Amino acid sequence: MRFMTAGESHGKGLCGIIEGVPANLSLSSPEIDKELRRRQSGFGRGGRMKIESDHAEIFSGVRWGKTLGSPITLFIENRDHKNWLQGMSEDISAQGSLPPVTRPRPGHADLAGAIKYGQQDIRNILERSSARETAVRVACGAVAKRFLSEFGIMVGSYVTQIGNEHAAIDSQPSSEDLQSLFEGAENSVVRCPDEKSGRRMVALIEKAMKEGNSLGGVFEVFVTGVPAGLGSHIQWDRRLDGKLAQALMSVQAIKGVEVGAGFAMAGRPGSEVMDEISYVREKSEARRKKERKAFTAGRTMRAALKGA
Amino acid sequence: MRFMTAGESHGKGLCGIIEGVPANLSLSSPEIDKELRRRQSGFGRGGRMKIESDHAEIFSGVRWGKTLGSPITLFIENRDHKNWLQGMSEDISAQGSLPPVTRPRPGHADLAGAIKYGQQDIRNILERSSARETAVRVACGAVAKRFLSEFGIMVGSYVTQIGNEHAAIDSQPSSEDLQSLFEGAENSVVRCPDEKSGRRMVALIEKAMKEGNSLGGVFEVFVTGVPAGLGSHIQWDRRLDGKLAQALMSVQAIKGVEVGAGFAMAGRPGSEVMDEISYVREKSEARRKKERKAFTAGRTMRAALKGA
Amino acid sequence: MRFMTAGESHGKGLCGIIEGVPANLSLSSPEIDKELRRRQSGFGRGGRMKIESDHAEIFSGVRWGKTLGSPITLFIENRDHKNWLQGMSEDISAQGSLPPVTRPRPGHADLAGAIKYGQQDIRNILERSSARETAVRVACGAVAKRFLSEFGIMVGSYVTQIGNEHAAIDSQPSSEDLQSLFEGAENSVVRCPDEKSGRRMVALIEKAMKEGNSLGGVFEVFVTGVPAGLGSHIQWDRRLDGKLAQALMSVQAIKGVEVGAGFAMAGRPGSEVMDEISYVREKSEARRKKERKAFTAGRTMRAALKGA
Amino acid sequence: MRFMTAGESHGKGLCGIIEGVPANLSLSSPEIDKELRRRQSGFGRGGRMKIESDHAEIFSGVRWGKTLGSPITLFIENRDHKNWLQGMSEDISAQGSLPPVTRPRPGHADLAGAIKYGQQDIRNILERSSARETAVRVACGAVAKRFLSEFGIMVGSYVTQIGNEHAAIDSQPSSEDLQSLFEGAENSVVRCPDEKSGRRMVALIEKAMKEGNSLGGVFEVFVTGVPAGLGSHIQWDRRLDGKLAQALMSVQAIKGVEVGAGFAMAGRPGSEVMDEISYVREKSEARRKKERKAFTAGRTMRAALKGA
Repeated sequence: MRFMTAGESHGKGLCGIIEGVPANLSLSSPEIDKELRRRQSGFGRGGRMKIESDHAEIFSGVRWGKTLGSPITLFIENRDHKNWLQGMSEDISAQGSLPPVTRPRPGHADLAGAIKYGQQDIRNILERSSARETAVRVACGAVAKRFLSEFGIMVGSYVTQIGNEHAAIDSQPSSEDLQSLFEGAENSVVRCPDEKSGRRMVALIEKAMKEGNSLGGVFEVFVTGVPAGLGSHIQWDRRLDGKLAQALMSVQAIKGVEVGAGFAMAGRPGSEVMDEISYVREKSEARRKKERKAFTAGRTMRAALKGA
Repeated sequence: MRFMTAGESHGKGLCGIIEGVPANLSLSSPEIDKELRRRQSGFGRGGRMKIESDHAEIFSGVRWGKTLGSPITLFIENRDHKNWLQGMSEDISAQGSLPPVTRPRPGHADLAGAIKYGQQDIRNILERSSARETAVRVACGAVAKRFLSEFGIMVGSYVTQIGNEHAAIDSQPSSEDLQSLFEGAENSVVRCPDEKSGRRMVALIEKAMKEGNSLGGVFEVFVTGVPAGLGSHIQWDRRLDGKLAQALMSVQAIKGVEVGAGFAMAGRPGSEVMDEISYVREKSEARRKKERKAFTAGRTMRAALKGA
Repeated sequence: MRFMTAGESHGKGLCGIIEGVPANLSLSSPEIDKELRRRQSGFGRGGRMKIESDHAEIFSGVRWGKTLGSPITLFIENRDHKNWLQGMSEDISAQGSLPPVTRPRPGHADLAGAIKYGQQDIRNILERSSARETAVRVACGAVAKRFLSEFGIMVGSYVTQIGNEHAAIDSQPSSEDLQSLFEGAENSVVRCPDEKSGRRMVALIEKAMKEGNSLGGVFEVFVTGVPAGLGSHIQWDRRLDGKLAQALMSVQAIKGVEVGAGFAMAGRPGSEVMDEISYVREKSEARRKKERKAFTAGRTMRAALKGA
Repeated sequence: MRFMTAGESHGKGLCGIIEGVPANLSLSSPEIDKELRRRQSGFGRGGRMKIESDHAEIFSGVRWGKTLGSPITLFIENRDHKNWLQGMSEDISAQGSLPPVTRPRPGHADLAGAIKYGQQDIRNILERSSARETAVRVACGAVAKRFLSEFGIMVGSYVTQIGNEHAAIDSQPSSEDLQSLFEGAENSVVRCPDEKSGRRMVALIEKAMKEGNSLGGVFEVFVTGVPAGLGSHIQWDRRLDGKLAQALMSVQAIKGVEVGAGFAMAGRPGSEVMDEISYVREKSEARRKKERKAFTAGRTMRAALKGA
């Protein structure tokens, strides 16, 4: 399975092609749109999030509610584009209709991108480096989630920190805990399962907004129902941890990635960071004793976002 | 540079994403459409070719007439789609609105595709395996041609055979010959530079059409202005001939590819198939004696199409 | 499955790493060496073919006669290297121990390679572009053949033309014919199943050798037992014909590749180049009427070699 | 540039092929061996580290002290292999000469690998998943470092934590600081530039060894002299942070990766995590104000190792 995305932040829209999805998987726009809404619903999101209620149109690869095995094209219109018809036109006749952006923002791709791609107008960089691109990644990810769900594999996440507010969350949650943490996150405007902490996060965000500032945070992603043997130890670029780390770190503003206990493991002796393995008779298979631990090592990941 | 295409023959349209094109290259829809028109103008093409006057809309990667370095999305609407709104709908509610195709055509992907992708309705295969997909490949190729033209590299082609009619064309044309062969092809309804032969080809096609039959043919592709050193001998999958052969053989209905004299070289002694190398003073560089030969070995290719 | 090769013609040896081979496949050096011997046994091969009786040592990926799933390293020592210890040493102290090669041969990578890689001594190019590299490709291919044989898939080949001598071979052989053609080839010094023609080929080669010349030729490769659905129509770079064409055209001196009837199909009407499809009851599966035809379209390939 | 490694921990040796290295780069075994020695010199390393004084033999790609542009093969003999001639033989005749490993170790690839590759004898997994594989990655990395040094790009690292001992190191070192931190690391048995802390680390390791335990730790990698514009914002899989994260996280036992301040950035407002940009007149180019900061955002990385 491979995918590519395209599209500028204020251009006509964002486009993604996902290829290698098997045939006969049921798939529909509303399922994808549900994930796009989750992306847009965070507290304190910019005004634009309200303008754009994203919708992924399926241009190819699906017929009568099922995938064809052929490449799936998803297109998310930029509803704001109507205000940028000239400014982001592909036509040369629109040249100069908008003043150039000449001041590179720190902590962004602006400067490096302008040097690399030989641009005087930084808009030619920021339109693509913008976090708006994640919308179509979410849409592609929704297709992957749809596929994984056929195997009982479930992906979830929740927020554990915003600014200097840390939620009180068990650092080694069980599978059941993970499920309820996820549900808590789904019901929170800041995606934090710890309600009290969530309220303080809201207050912190409101304060930062008043000050014209922004905040970073930390979230945890987990996957349950993963079969043994995804990825492989046989070559560096097939290792699962490495691939997952790339996927996360390639998201705009993510600056740290941990697997399981991550950096905390560095401070503990080897004897304490190992997952015990035992045989669970009723499941007729060898598996690690505490399932929460089983999935700590390879399938819970934590990522840090910086403010922007 | 990499690209992927997507889209079904009677779906909403065909989509291509091309990535790795440098920034600041001038590019416009009309330039791409010109290549799409060339694709559609062949004599004896099905009625649909007349229905669809293809237009490539640029969805991303170009602003004010210049590429941004970001992925370029091209979208070619299927004008015929309005007649297939239900039959090719992505919505499950349209299920069954068209009877299934159950008879696999010989010489097509129908049978193998249906087995591989588990389809009862062969339409779910043929919609993607259709030669209509080449429209968006042509569009992507138009971008590549635009890029290459910056370096004085020019790609052309002409037809040398349709059915059993062989055009009288020098088998080792010089660079100047190639240019005039190309111009001859551009002015011929069957893209054959030999006018007399072209008229006989037209007659053959008319006869085949009356009989409900089709014809194959042979065309030659050439590239002029290529610098030494594209591709590489260091690894099997970097060799230029191999990459070009894949690109050509991946086109629907192409069943043979030759580089330079190709199979004819098999019957000649080694001493006759070598390009002599000499020094061309006025160009201040060593190059092969007869330029036409220089390009015979590596950069003229011939491909055979079967009828369908 | 992916592989890379390395090694110079007169260096220490040739190395290949093949990765993605499943575990628990039986594999041994002698099996690979058998294929290496087949490569070396052609009539009229240079004297070196006699010096080097190639042996592939397995450096990794196999234990106790079975693959481990880990990358398989094959190493073929260059027995001639002992005469090139200084000339091909990796050590700077050996610099200048051999006069440079300064005359590029036509029809080889010499000139283009020297320009691309900035070399004064063409030996730095020809040592790698040499056809000796195919020894390790044969070794890697032997592993692939071993794997395919588990599924009853068999790869064979035979020579149909050397110089202007064409063997009398049915252009549409059945599966049984293919097997006997292959056996005929295995028993021929020129790999030609047509004995009379083979004798004339031997005479042609002897004549060319006396004249200090060389000859090209044509061979056919076939695969039997292939299941439906290898490759895919969904993306240009997944199409089987294209991949096979790349693999063949990437072999040194190959200048033409055909699938099935290839260029001959161009001259026949569509109605004659189609493989009829029918249902073979006893095999409980739909398949094409004449098996020979079934495999003509996608799995018999013909390639042309030029002399060197 | 791409590379693959192969080889088992107690097999004949480890092999790497690196491809895409330009021609005419000076390269020698001793340079590579120097990096291999650095890998082996850590305090508390297992006894095997003393047995094996690794040496990378260059099998291909280098002639007379310079790269040829062709693939470079590096081979590191396993000196311990002489004790495993039967146990790790590729020959089926050696089958059963060693009792199988049947107890999967927690925190390793043992269990998942055995399930994935269908192995009863876990040795068939652990021989490849072993950290010994990093020896050849270091060798390949040495080639890359050699290449980068031509552009004044320098890669260094130092240890900041072992077990619960944290070194006192400035969290935002300048370029000059980085250089001296690196020199401090080179002179420390635990690669810690803070001498006092280093002594406590040694004590911790000794204690853990007595207890049959192991420790994790944290190290920082930095790169100086990097030009603007490596990587790209245009596609998720071209982003530099993502690629670096994959490279680090694919190393055995690494469970966390940070870019710049990483997780610490999550707790600080956006206004404090930005690198200011200013114009440095004497260098005639726009660059970020404090160079140390310039490289914090994109080119200093921190990774966490767990004990094993």
